[in-house]
Amino acid sequence: MKTDRLEYFSDAVFAIVITLLIIDVHLPANWTSGLGNALVALWPSYLAYAVSFFVIGAIWINHHGMFQLIVRADNSFLLLNVLQLMAIAFIPFPTAVLAESIHVGSGMSTAIVFYGGTLVSVGVTVNLMWRYAVRAGLVRDDITPAKVKLLNRRFLLGPAAYVVAVAVGLAFPWAALAIFVGINVYFLWPRWKRKARSE
Amino acid sequence: MKTDRLEYFSDAVFAIVITLLIIDVHLPANWTSGLGNALVALWPSYLAYAVSFFVIGAIWINHHGMFQLIVRADNSFLLLNVLQLMAIAFIPFPTAVLAESIHVGSGMSTAIVFYGGTLVSVGVTVNLMWRYAVRAGLVRDDITPAKVKLLNRRFLLGPAAYVVAVAVGLAFPWAALAIFVGINVYFLWPRWKRKARSE
Amino acid sequence: MKTDRLEYFSDAVFAIVITLLIIDVHLPANWTSGLGNALVALWPSYLAYAVSFFVIGAIWINHHGMFQLIVRADNSFLLLNVLQLMAIAFIPFPTAVLAESIHVGSGMSTAIVFYGGTLVSVGVTVNLMWRYAVRAGLVRDDITPAKVKLLNRRFLLGPAAYVVAVAVGLAFPWAALAIFVGINVYFLWPRWKRKARSE
Amino acid sequence: MKTDRLEYFSDAVFAIVITLLIIDVHLPANWTSGLGNALVALWPSYLAYAVSFFVIGAIWINHHGMFQLIVRADNSFLLLNVLQLMAIAFIPFPTAVLAESIHVGSGMSTAIVFYGGTLVSVGVTVNLMWRYAVRAGLVRDDITPAKVKLLNRRFLLGPAAYVVAVAVGLAFPWAALAIFVGINVYFLWPRWKRKARSE
Repeated sequence: MKTDRLEYFSDAVFAIVITLLIIDVHLPANWTSGLGNALVALWPSYLAYAVSFFVIGAIWINHHGMFQLIVRADNSFLLLNVLQLMAIAFIPFPTAVLAESIHVGSGMSTAIVFYGGTLVSVGVTVNLMWRYAVRAGLVRDDITPAKVKLLNRRFLLGPAAYVVAVAVGLAFPWAALAIFVGINVYFLWPRWKRKARSE
Repeated sequence: MKTDRLEYFSDAVFAIVITLLIIDVHLPANWTSGLGNALVALWPSYLAYAVSFFVIGAIWINHHGMFQLIVRADNSFLLLNVLQLMAIAFIPFPTAVLAESIHVGSGMSTAIVFYGGTLVSVGVTVNLMWRYAVRAGLVRDDITPAKVKLLNRRFLLGPAAYVVAVAVGLAFPWAALAIFVGINVYFLWPRWKRKARSE
Repeated sequence: MKTDRLEYFSDAVFAIVITLLIIDVHLPANWTSGLGNALVALWPSYLAYAVSFFVIGAIWINHHGMFQLIVRADNSFLLLNVLQLMAIAFIPFPTAVLAESIHVGSGMSTAIVFYGGTLVSVGVTVNLMWRYAVRAGLVRDDITPAKVKLLNRRFLLGPAAYVVAVAVGLAFPWAALAIFVGINVYFLWPRWKRKARSE
Repeated sequence: MKTDRLEYFSDAVFAIVITLLIIDVHLPANWTSGLGNALVALWPSYLAYAVSFFVIGAIWINHHGMFQLIVRADNSFLLLNVLQLMAIAFIPFPTAVLAESIHVGSGMSTAIVFYGGTLVSVGVTVNLMWRYAVRAGLVRDDITPAKVKLLNRRFLLGPAAYVVAVAVGLAFPWAALAIFVGINVYFLWPRWKRKARSE
């Protein structure tokens, strides 16, 4: 079974999740006392929107990269992909909770743990997919065992970093938020630089 | 007429339905008395989200499988597919009703019948599509009458099991919920094991 | 310029519009007095959902058919397609208005005119696209002037019938609703029968 | 890396954003005093819907055109595309704010600046993408440095015009709205005429 319809389906889910993030951003009912102030007061929503957009964008780029290694699919692999999408499609809710918690100024540690926990479960499903793909022979034939080992470790880095962020977030929620963004900058950055050097 | 645009369109609908499920999950207005408790109290919504995500994922995988047998389309077939999508796109509403009913602790039998009835109608449209495809010569040329008979029965299993689940749900709503998940595990499981054995 | 990305984009919009229809269906706040009755009382929403799903499905099948005749695109054609999508993406609102009006038992003629007017504007944009495609040489090379004339008339039938339905709806809103469904059954039916006969 | 999955993903986001615009259009609670009047009173929402649909449609056509010049992608380019989508997916919120502000008759200058600022940031990301693509050698091989220079200037026109519109909007919000539409008519018009002349 080829992976094209699977990639297509996943891309559609990514696109919808990323676009639904804005749905939870609303003007408060009492904005008529001043639109400018009301728009500024919504900054926690903009922040949560930007962080989640960036995080989901990075997960998408990662998914994109993984499917340049995986070239076949079977039914169990489809099911694992559904599990990953289940975790990803959940993200708009912890995003809204996070924005609400910053806005009200209460419960931010809880909100960060809830948000980070969702990202950890995304990372876990990514690793399940990758390991299953290797075991079931769904990866490209030119990928050596050494390369597999390297990638095994690379795919673990994400959820590990998220677990650290969640632990940090229990005491310093803002630091955790910075780590969520930082992890993804790190993942995207090296290739960027490498690319630039090779030209 | 080829089936690619039909598959594309259906995949998009599947992806949207599956992603819209989270839209009905909201923090209650009075959460400021404790975010942790408020998030825990939403478990019926998470449960309904997970069940529907899993069910729709399984329907998608099934649709995927059916279109490895069906290779042509005509206008009536497009119309039958629209009918199937009509039933699938309805799922977020009974899902929200189910979550609400568990949350309030009232009307769960009704909610289960409503939910199961929607799944039955999805199953009916799947069978209409399959039978029409066979009769109108839209299936792959190498599919023998014997194989058709086998598949005829296989496609009937889904709605039959859903009807049983609905009947059970009148008395034992939680058992019905377990059957909804169990049916799909059953459908996905055998191929999984077969795959594993053949390696 | 090829039409594939245009078709893709349009299909995505169709898929989203058709799936968003369910978002406006909600349980009333006071449902706890009886879930069964509350679900039954929502029948105007189900009816409006089914009619719009069927209508949009038929528009999609029609769009599908038109792009088996049109094989090239230019920028103006893209713009006309955006106009058509603007009319189609508007449909969820008149659908919700229609359901609300039936539910409350007030303003149904207005709601039908609003709904029908939206469908008329969809039909007008379909005709603009078709006529532009013919004039700008975007259609398949084997389509004779005689065939073009026939299709010119065929594409006009839709909006003409919708105008009639709107006029009827001023006095008999339910009759108009029946015409909306009937038009699309008519459009889909003949090919169905033709297909059956040719086998 | 080819650009097809990137284009696909972007198209899906465009399609969803454009279709979500209608979600914020709602009947007021007190409409039962007269449905016709209530529908007419919603004209600011229809206007904002039409303007944003047209603007996003034009951005899509522009994106479409840019990817007839860009034929390769790398990770940084994917990231820049995510940034562009972040700005585009934000548009439904300033659209709703604009409609609300016109409806209430207060804060329109602020709403226009907020709306125009979003469009400026879309334009900035379009230019970042284009310049990066040129520098990183992602464009078609037959594009001469002279053509690049021409396109560099062409891509700057959009955000420059939006900045002017925002400045104008501080004093004359309606004029700014006219400029938003006018810019896009201008961008689409010349090719239209050129096309017509060449036939």
